[in-house]
Amino acid sequence: MEVGICKQDVLQKKKNAVLVDGVILNGPIMDSKAGEKFVEEACKIIMEEVIQKANDVTEKVCEWRSPETLKKILDLEMRDTGESHQKLLQLCQDVIQYSVKTSHPRFFNQLYAGIDYYSLVARFITEALNPSVYTYEVSPVFLLVEETVIKKMIEFIGWEEGDGIFNPGGSVSNMYAMNLARYKFCPEIKEKGLSGLPRLVLFTSEECHYSMKKAASFLGIGTENVYFIKTDERGKMIPEELEKQVQRARKEGSAPFLVCATAGTTVLGAFDPLDEIADICEKHGLWLHVDASWGGSALISRKHCRLLHGIHRADSVAWNPHKMLLAGIQCCALLVKDNSGLLKKCYSAKAAYLFQQDKFYDVSYDTGDKSIQCSRRPDAFKFWLMWKALGTTGLEERVNRALALARYLVEEIKKREGFQLLLEPEYANICFWYIPPSLRKMEDGPEFWQKLHEVAPIIKERMMKKGSMMLGYQPHRGKVNFFRQVVISPQVSREDMDFLLDEIELLAKDL
Amino acid sequence: MEVGICKQDVLQKKKNAVLVDGVILNGPIMDSKAGEKFVEEACKIIMEEVIQKANDVTEKVCEWRSPETLKKILDLEMRDTGESHQKLLQLCQDVIQYSVKTSHPRFFNQLYAGIDYYSLVARFITEALNPSVYTYEVSPVFLLVEETVIKKMIEFIGWEEGDGIFNPGGSVSNMYAMNLARYKFCPEIKEKGLSGLPRLVLFTSEECHYSMKKAASFLGIGTENVYFIKTDERGKMIPEELEKQVQRARKEGSAPFLVCATAGTTVLGAFDPLDEIADICEKHGLWLHVDASWGGSALISRKHCRLLHGIHRADSVAWNPHKMLLAGIQCCALLVKDNSGLLKKCYSAKAAYLFQQDKFYDVSYDTGDKSIQCSRRPDAFKFWLMWKALGTTGLEERVNRALALARYLVEEIKKREGFQLLLEPEYANICFWYIPPSLRKMEDGPEFWQKLHEVAPIIKERMMKKGSMMLGYQPHRGKVNFFRQVVISPQVSREDMDFLLDEIELLAKDL
Repeated sequence: MEVGICKQDVLQKKKNAVLVDGVILNGPIMDSKAGEKFVEEACKIIMEEVIQKANDVTEKVCEWRSPETLKKILDLEMRDTGESHQKLLQLCQDVIQYSVKTSHPRFFNQLYAGIDYYSLVARFITEALNPSVYTYEVSPVFLLVEETVIKKMIEFIGWEEGDGIFNPGGSVSNMYAMNLARYKFCPEIKEKGLSGLPRLVLFTSEECHYSMKKAASFLGIGTENVYFIKTDERGKMIPEELEKQVQRARKEGSAPFLVCATAGTTVLGAFDPLDEIADICEKHGLWLHVDASWGGSALISRKHCRLLHGIHRADSVAWNPHKMLLAGIQCCALLVKDNSGLLKKCYSAKAAYLFQQDKFYDVSYDTGDKSIQCSRRPDAFKFWLMWKALGTTGLEERVNRALALARYLVEEIKKREGFQLLLEPEYANICFWYIPPSLRKMEDGPEFWQKLHEVAPIIKERMMKKGSMMLGYQPHRGKVNFFRQVVISPQVSREDMDFLLDEIELLAKDL
Repeated sequence: MEVGICKQDVLQKKKNAVLVDGVILNGPIMDSKAGEKFVEEACKIIMEEVIQKANDVTEKVCEWRSPETLKKILDLEMRDTGESHQKLLQLCQDVIQYSVKTSHPRFFNQLYAGIDYYSLVARFITEALNPSVYTYEVSPVFLLVEETVIKKMIEFIGWEEGDGIFNPGGSVSNMYAMNLARYKFCPEIKEKGLSGLPRLVLFTSEECHYSMKKAASFLGIGTENVYFIKTDERGKMIPEELEKQVQRARKEGSAPFLVCATAGTTVLGAFDPLDEIADICEKHGLWLHVDASWGGSALISRKHCRLLHGIHRADSVAWNPHKMLLAGIQCCALLVKDNSGLLKKCYSAKAAYLFQQDKFYDVSYDTGDKSIQCSRRPDAFKFWLMWKALGTTGLEERVNRALALARYLVEEIKKREGFQLLLEPEYANICFWYIPPSLRKMEDGPEFWQKLHEVAPIIKERMMKKGSMMLGYQPHRGKVNFFRQVVISPQVSREDMDFLLDEIELLAKDL
């Protein structure tokens, strides 16, 4: 170890330079002026190539390349020496060019889409500030904002009080709820674990999100102990079936502890009948969690909040403002009715290095110990700034418009030859088949369905290679491949709905 | 439900306007030009108030306000109507003003600090593109980048092959590893759960991160089944003690399955002796996970990688480039030696709506089913762009310089009256007491330590209210409150180290 004032020649260059382990320690090593210039130039590219093009339907949604080709185009390898700013800016251009434009008005592929300028600004601010929200001393503003946003979301659920936390995804929120329900059912599990306990059983519908299985597996409950409840033809949980399954579980000697209802299923956009499910939960003393990751945003709309009638009776709710409300990935809250500190009791580990109890301020603001994470991003902030900008009525307008556009599309589908709705949608998921000309006169039967099954993947391939739009498809519960169109973005207009149908016809005219 | 062409007066305004459910559907509802202008103006504020001030030591690290005062200053409430752009820009200014400047050269409070311009640009790009990395069709570039980065990190660990995934935090990575080790130990747990199984037991050191307890609780293993292994005076796990505890667990009839070693403990920065621990794991057939969330970045330095000697023998490694390497919160990889698809087998739920098997491209690129998340952020990208910009040697220089600065500070502490090192550090955590003038002549004894315990919180309060720097303190394993200084940022210079010591003396001169 060499520590000492270094030689004359270095000293001449740097006053009081100190050499330690071969490193000259005076002054920072970064060229901040060059760095700032790089940020400025890159921001210009982002503004021109992403933000300003977000509304431009003449741009491609995607510039499809196969993995093999794209690997060749992008210079992926990381080397010993760095690249020039010029090369890096070109790389940024390439990354943007070959990335899917999820903000494009014709990106209908997932449960998120579009661009919100306010949320985007909030995200730029937090990326620049690089905070972690665990203690008030490090994240004063963002913790207060999170508290405010959670309180407001709780108001819309209809609880008088409650608690909550923002998480990296609805899947994680569902896990939180499952663990919380389990803790409430048997607090000793936190210390003792599940070994030696009776089999815990939870109930959710056949149409639930796949995170339920992931959560049951991750939490040591086991996927076989998720009892899937039958749904009706619209994808809604049948309360009588739930009642039967709870009784079955009790007869088996297992320990039912939780019902996970879904408000807005992933494929069909169905809403479980929350009020009737709540009755059953009350009767059997079961925790009611509502996965409203997708459908929760309807609570903002006075017109559509009836879809979630009864949600105030839930014990916990997962709600992702990054979907229908465009808060940007990720923005996901788990909200809990309990206000007696259950969340903290369940999750806290009381790390003394982070959550010191002898701080000079009220440490009840150090809310990080409610989380399974240590570092945590300030995801509430982007929702907050967007809400401040648009007001509740602006958010409401967003929901109403998306659902009106969905309604418009449904009516157009009904009018057009070759298009067939799977079901009358409740929400913004429009599920339909496109029956190409050659299949229209075929008899209904296994061969017809097999051929129809192959249609959507071909159309999908063609639309992606053309880059004109993106739309998801899937087989689902015995039904062959169909399209799922999702309407979200306020950048979308009626013309885009018409385009969608025209484009499918065009892409499939030879099929 | 009203669907139809609306009245003449609206028609005159908008060609072919359609009214559905009271919503006019033509054209987007957002004013994109105004939105873009808002983004531009906000970016200017971010550039001036955050990025350009990042290196300026004349700026405050924090502008402390109590929660009550800050609530009054910030207009937190979300209302029915939105705010003007002017008001919103002022809000952005306020948010920045009262947020902690974690990029400030005198922010030494956490295991992250500083600003990296390249990573920041990457984050701006991904926020603007708003991708989710689960399928190649939606995130082609970001999935290829993740694959490349994971491969490169695996090289530095010293594995010939492997697998991995980026997660929202080291805590989550540790959970992944724990679940993966459990799955390897007994794959049926995924379906059957832990009920009825023998008690699973894992081992980690007394100095481990608190996420180990959180993970054991969350995964249904139970915190009591985490056996904490004694450490030596430097905070390193004692292999003989591990051996004893494994034997004890076996005698009890429980099922040992996992050892979690730590490479860079949170408080002391200690590195467990990985090679010796690996011997014990091999002997007993236990999965070896290394939590190198903090210390992993030393692998990049040819000089300091010896700290992790033996890491190539681990089965899994958690490594957060957002800490020492400045990739921005969050950037956390879990790396797994197995390359037979264990990660996917353990985590997959095979959701048909997302991971269709009849896609037109090679669906092995749809790696999202390896994750417990559904939506997932492209966190590998920011590390990749930074690596491209700096090269491996640039990253190495960052690590070497941080550790040289730490060394410098240690030597200065030894020279100064009133400062007392807890221990000779191995890494960038410098733990020390400041003994103020009034205590220097006191006899060693309970009263001395009680008084010393109260010193750090007072100095912390004063530094925060002054805003001159931020530095953490904690009591730890029987030792009274001491400071933990963490050196990371390349913006930090020797002068900042000197300032730190001078400032503590200044703040505590009357104590």
